[in-house]
Amino acid sequence: MTNTPLFIPVILGTPRQGRQSEHVAKFIVEQIATRDDVETELIDVRTIAIPTNDAGESIKDPQFSATVERADGLIIIAPEYNHGYPGLLKHLLDTCLKEYIHKAVGLCGVSAGAFGGTRVIENLLPVMRELGLVTIFYDLNFTNVQDLFDESGNLIDKQTYIRRLDKFMNELVWMSTVLRYGRQKVNQ
Amino acid sequence: MTNTPLFIPVILGTPRQGRQSEHVAKFIVEQIATRDDVETELIDVRTIAIPTNDAGESIKDPQFSATVERADGLIIIAPEYNHGYPGLLKHLLDTCLKEYIHKAVGLCGVSAGAFGGTRVIENLLPVMRELGLVTIFYDLNFTNVQDLFDESGNLIDKQTYIRRLDKFMNELVWMSTVLRYGRQKVNQ
Amino acid sequence: MTNTPLFIPVILGTPRQGRQSEHVAKFIVEQIATRDDVETELIDVRTIAIPTNDAGESIKDPQFSATVERADGLIIIAPEYNHGYPGLLKHLLDTCLKEYIHKAVGLCGVSAGAFGGTRVIENLLPVMRELGLVTIFYDLNFTNVQDLFDESGNLIDKQTYIRRLDKFMNELVWMSTVLRYGRQKVNQ
Amino acid sequence: MTNTPLFIPVILGTPRQGRQSEHVAKFIVEQIATRDDVETELIDVRTIAIPTNDAGESIKDPQFSATVERADGLIIIAPEYNHGYPGLLKHLLDTCLKEYIHKAVGLCGVSAGAFGGTRVIENLLPVMRELGLVTIFYDLNFTNVQDLFDESGNLIDKQTYIRRLDKFMNELVWMSTVLRYGRQKVNQ
Repeated sequence: MTNTPLFIPVILGTPRQGRQSEHVAKFIVEQIATRDDVETELIDVRTIAIPTNDAGESIKDPQFSATVERADGLIIIAPEYNHGYPGLLKHLLDTCLKEYIHKAVGLCGVSAGAFGGTRVIENLLPVMRELGLVTIFYDLNFTNVQDLFDESGNLIDKQTYIRRLDKFMNELVWMSTVLRYGRQKVNQ
Repeated sequence: MTNTPLFIPVILGTPRQGRQSEHVAKFIVEQIATRDDVETELIDVRTIAIPTNDAGESIKDPQFSATVERADGLIIIAPEYNHGYPGLLKHLLDTCLKEYIHKAVGLCGVSAGAFGGTRVIENLLPVMRELGLVTIFYDLNFTNVQDLFDESGNLIDKQTYIRRLDKFMNELVWMSTVLRYGRQKVNQ
Repeated sequence: MTNTPLFIPVILGTPRQGRQSEHVAKFIVEQIATRDDVETELIDVRTIAIPTNDAGESIKDPQFSATVERADGLIIIAPEYNHGYPGLLKHLLDTCLKEYIHKAVGLCGVSAGAFGGTRVIENLLPVMRELGLVTIFYDLNFTNVQDLFDESGNLIDKQTYIRRLDKFMNELVWMSTVLRYGRQKVNQ
Repeated sequence: MTNTPLFIPVILGTPRQGRQSEHVAKFIVEQIATRDDVETELIDVRTIAIPTNDAGESIKDPQFSATVERADGLIIIAPEYNHGYPGLLKHLLDTCLKEYIHKAVGLCGVSAGAFGGTRVIENLLPVMRELGLVTIFYDLNFTNVQDLFDESGNLIDKQTYIRRLDKFMNELVWMSTVLRYGRQKVNQ
C-alpha cells in the first residue's frame, strides 16, 4: 500500500460577506500544513464561478472536479443557515458525482449560536452519503464563532481547538487511508 | 375573520436546463386557478437575480420579499438532488426570514427515480421549521417524472394527480386559513 | 372561541435509571402550574405498560390515548441517545395516530454533552410531522444536564431557564390556541 | 489480510405481530447462504429480552453484544413507522456502543406504502453514524410489502430482488472488507 501523503482539500462553504468561516478555514489549513501525512489546499466557493441558470454535472468546473478526483478525503466547513446548508455549497457539490465515491469527509459546523452547527451537520449527512462519501463520526463544531477569533482572525483559545482538530484529523486520516486502500486494492 | 382568498405562491425550485419541475409547476398553477379560495403566482428561482458573492438577508430581492410577505402559504416544488435540496432554492429561501413566520407550506418532491422526492422533503423539514413555516403532513410526490408528461408538458394521467392535488390543497388551505386567523387575531 | 385553559401534557421520554430528564420534567410541570392558561399533567414512559412483542395501534394504552385525545398540545422531553430518540418513547408514540392530528408540540432536548439535544430534536421532526403534530420553532435545550440541577433536583440557574421556558410556552400556547380554533371552527 | 468469510448478521427490526419484514429477513438470510464470502445469522428484536425500565449500555444483552462484536458488518431491516424507526429496534441498538465502531451497515427499508421505507432510512442515518457504523450508499427498498410475498412468504418477483440484493451485498462486502482491513492493519 502506498505511503504517499493523503490529499484532503478544505472546502470553505459560504461566500457570505463577513464570513467567520474564513478564519476557521485558515486555521485548519495552517494546522494541516504541520502534518507530514496530509497535503491540503483551500477550495473557496466564492471563487469558483459556476453558472446559476443550470444545476448538476452539466456545469462542472474542471478544476474543482480534478481536485476532488485527486482527493482522498474532504473537509467541509459549513456555516449553519436556517438549520440547513448554504445554498451555494450545495450548488457546487452537485456538480460532481463519481469524483466523491468511496472517499472520506469530515464535517465542520460553524454557528453564531450556542450549538456549533450541529444542525447543518445533520442536514448534510444524507447528501454526503448519496455522493458516495463516508462521513466520519467525529465533527468539529465552532460555537459562537463571532467570539472565537481576535482582530487578526486568529483563534483566541487556540490550544483547545488544536486538540479537537488533532482528534478530528486522526479519524479522518484513518478513514481516508482505509478507503484509499479499498479503492486501490479491493475489487468491486 | 376575513374571507378574502388565500394567497399561496408556487416556488419552482430549480433553474436546471431541461427541468421537468417546470411542467409540475405549470400543472399546479393551472389547477389552483380553478379554485376561488386561493390566488397564486409562479416564483421561478431561475428568474430572480440574487448575487452569488454573498448570502442571507443582505441580498434580499425586494419583489420576492414582498411576495412572501403577502403570502398566507407557499408551495415549494423541489427536485431531489443527491438526496438534498437544490442549492439555488436554498440560496433564495435564505434571503428572507420574518416574511415566512407562522405561514403554511406544502412540499412537492420531484424525482427521476422511484421514490417521488421523499428524501428532499425530509431534508427540507428542519429548514422549513426554522424559517417559521408549518409544513403540512400531506405531500405531493412526482415519481419517475420524466415519464409523467407528454410532449406538450401535460400530465398523461391527469386525473390521478388532480385527486392528489385536491387532497394536498385542502390540507394546505386549512392550515393557511387557520394560521392567518392566528396571525390576525391571536396575540403573541 | 373557547377560553377554557389549554391542556398540554408533558411526556417524559425515557425510562432510563438515573435519568436527569426527570428533573427537567418536574421543573416544567411546576412552572406550568403557575400559568392560568394551561393545564398539564406528567406522562412518564416508564409507568405506561405496553407490550414489547408487538408495535403500533394494536397495543394502544387506553389512558395514554385518552390523554392525547384530550390534549391541545404536547411537550416532549427527549434525551439524546446516539443522536436519535429513545426507543421506548417512539414505541409509545407509535401506539396513537388520529389522537395527534392538528395539535401543537414543543420539543425539549436533553444532553449530557454541549449541544443541548439539538440532534434528537432534528431526528424527531419527520416523526412529529407524520403524526400530524405541528412542531413549534422554538425549542428548549438542556446542555450538560448533569451539571444543571442540585442534589434536590432543582435547577441551579433557575432564572435563565424560566425565561427560556416562558418564551417556549408563549409560542406553544399561541400555536395550540390557533390549532384548537382550527379544529373547532374551520371545516376540513 | 485475512480471507476468512465476513460475518454480517441480519437484524430484523420489529416485533410487530403480522410483520412482513420477517419474510424480507428470511429472503435475505437464505440468499446470503448461497455466498461463500459471507456468513450470517438472524437477530430478531422480538426474541431478545431486554428490560424496559432502563435504557443504554446498562441493559446490554451479552449474546447480542458478542454477536455485534464479532460482526464485520450489519444488515438492518427497518419497517417505516410514522416516517421513523421502530422504537424497539432503537432500544436494542442503544445497548451497545464500541461493538459497532468502524463496521459497515446496509439498510433495508420496508413500507406498506409506495416509497420503500426511504424515510426510515433517512431517519436512521445520524444514528448509524454516531454508533460508528458506515452506512453504504446503496439501500434495499421493499415497497408495498404486503403485495410482494405469496402465502408461503416467498417473493413473487424473486429475480428482481435477487439482482438488487446482489448489488447491495457487493457494496456491503466491499465496505466490510475494507473496514476490516482498517481495523486490523491501520493504526488509530
